[in-house]
Amino acid sequence: MSSQETKEQATKSFSEVFPILTEEFLTENFYHNVPGGKMNRGLSVVDTLKILKNDQLTEEDLFKSRVLGWCVEMLQAFFLVADDIMDASYTRRGNPCWYKMEGVGLIAINDSFILESAIYFFLKKYFRQDPYYIDLVELFHEITFETELGQLLDLTIAPEDNIDLNRFSIDKYQSIVLYKTAFYSFYLPVALAMHMAGIKNEKAFKAAKEILLPLGEYFQIQDDYLDCFGDPKYTGKIGTDIQDNKCSWLVNQALAKVSSEQRKLLEENYGKKNLENVAIIKQIYKDLELEKLYKEYEEQSFNKLNDLISQLDDSLINRQVFITFMNKIYKRTK
Amino acid sequence: MSSQETKEQATKSFSEVFPILTEEFLTENFYHNVPGGKMNRGLSVVDTLKILKNDQLTEEDLFKSRVLGWCVEMLQAFFLVADDIMDASYTRRGNPCWYKMEGVGLIAINDSFILESAIYFFLKKYFRQDPYYIDLVELFHEITFETELGQLLDLTIAPEDNIDLNRFSIDKYQSIVLYKTAFYSFYLPVALAMHMAGIKNEKAFKAAKEILLPLGEYFQIQDDYLDCFGDPKYTGKIGTDIQDNKCSWLVNQALAKVSSEQRKLLEENYGKKNLENVAIIKQIYKDLELEKLYKEYEEQSFNKLNDLISQLDDSLINRQVFITFMNKIYKRTK
Repeated sequence: MSSQETKEQATKSFSEVFPILTEEFLTENFYHNVPGGKMNRGLSVVDTLKILKNDQLTEEDLFKSRVLGWCVEMLQAFFLVADDIMDASYTRRGNPCWYKMEGVGLIAINDSFILESAIYFFLKKYFRQDPYYIDLVELFHEITFETELGQLLDLTIAPEDNIDLNRFSIDKYQSIVLYKTAFYSFYLPVALAMHMAGIKNEKAFKAAKEILLPLGEYFQIQDDYLDCFGDPKYTGKIGTDIQDNKCSWLVNQALAKVSSEQRKLLEENYGKKNLENVAIIKQIYKDLELEKLYKEYEEQSFNKLNDLISQLDDSLINRQVFITFMNKIYKRTK
Repeated sequence: MSSQETKEQATKSFSEVFPILTEEFLTENFYHNVPGGKMNRGLSVVDTLKILKNDQLTEEDLFKSRVLGWCVEMLQAFFLVADDIMDASYTRRGNPCWYKMEGVGLIAINDSFILESAIYFFLKKYFRQDPYYIDLVELFHEITFETELGQLLDLTIAPEDNIDLNRFSIDKYQSIVLYKTAFYSFYLPVALAMHMAGIKNEKAFKAAKEILLPLGEYFQIQDDYLDCFGDPKYTGKIGTDIQDNKCSWLVNQALAKVSSEQRKLLEENYGKKNLENVAIIKQIYKDLELEKLYKEYEEQSFNKLNDLISQLDDSLINRQVFITFMNKIYKRTK
């Protein structure tokens, strides 16, 4: 191995290993973790670009917006693979979590890194020649960092193995949702399409953020509501937020309204796997009329966002982007 | 939480949380994981820039090269925090591994992500105005990806909990070292300084790579050699590669030379914690004259690299960069 020949031989045999790796590990990692969700985030990039370009998309525009959409899905995969390890989860999208698969285990940590690296690999491959290339790269960096801070906040404020309702609060809930979910799920796909559409004005990005972040917050609150009150016929899943000690919108609203007796009951029964405990929590939610509170919140939130959209300076960005988003999300049952 | 006021309040209270976070978590994460090593990689950026600029560094040059050096150290911290979890290690640099610290656990995965995000945060903060900003960003992306592929190869070929010497080979060893260590430890610091020095010619980067990657390989082989044959008086540590079932240069050389009887002994005793097993492995290494083989390899490698350096086109890059590196590394005893 000390001679030039052996070095070349090593390079050759390393090259021979790569397709195997790709086949067995990279491909498996990608196919298991990137598709399989609803792909709403990825599709939003394409949908937004269509609106911003008045449906005048070239084949190249279409292809490139789909690539960016997949980059958002890869970012999400990077987070979810790691989150599942940190949360000790068993299943994701109806399949075993990646780290639970035979022969994977904690290698999943490195696999999650590779999913993230793939984003920048593809950005370089498809966008290097574009004037907005660095904007895409910086946007992914910033959103990644914000999401990591949200995850840190979530992990330190609401660790799943240590039930302490004193750590929960509505403000903290809101901060976690904003950082951990809204930036990457709502702002990122739209901002990527805006860059592709050639939008440069910082004010346009600020305006988009001011609508999309509250929209993301509403979306998460809706998710939390449906987890408990949704119809499994529509949602396709049976919620377990109560059992899992989740820092949900509902428990935070309950904590703000409970009597001292109800608080005691909440503390005794929240985060327990037993269905009797869950039933007690659901009864408290019922007694506190949280469904009504949610409906009021939804109405107010809907009105507030419609106001924001109608006040939007349409010369900055086509308001149809946000109307489409609203229509997809508001009053959904699944 | 549905009104504008509460949103503002949430923003305020989130802002109040951040200094606490920074204090308690971000700072601790950084101080525990980034400094504390020998800092050779970080210092190499500064040393290389000094040579490339003939010691004519402004205060700004010095500061910025130190920032880049710390970015290399952050990249290493990102890898090491995660590697220690994947390897189930206990200590690192004489301290408990980060994930072994009270209250950290698997949150360390997200902490490792934050260490990586910090790189791009600081690159943007200090280099955004520089014409080579995107080159720095792309370089970090590429080296990160290569290191992750090296780690994947290492984890799948030589898992520590599953002893199978059939999976080892000199070629695979070489590929792991190249990807997992040499790119980020040797090429990265020099390439960063080259960008700062305004070098643009792709050939210069290629030439640097052709010298620095074999140098990195030699460095790792030397590390493996010293783990077994080094004097703890100088190295400051007692090696455990044999006990830990490491895919070391020595075991790969041994596997290429053993008789079938020695092979049987190797298989029976490698990767066992017992000192008697270790003694049997060391005896095989002695019988196979691996120390002599190493000395020969070292000599050949030294000559080969000196040839490469003397053949270097000095108009591309000052050869002194590599001579300085060689002098730091060759025939070291610690």
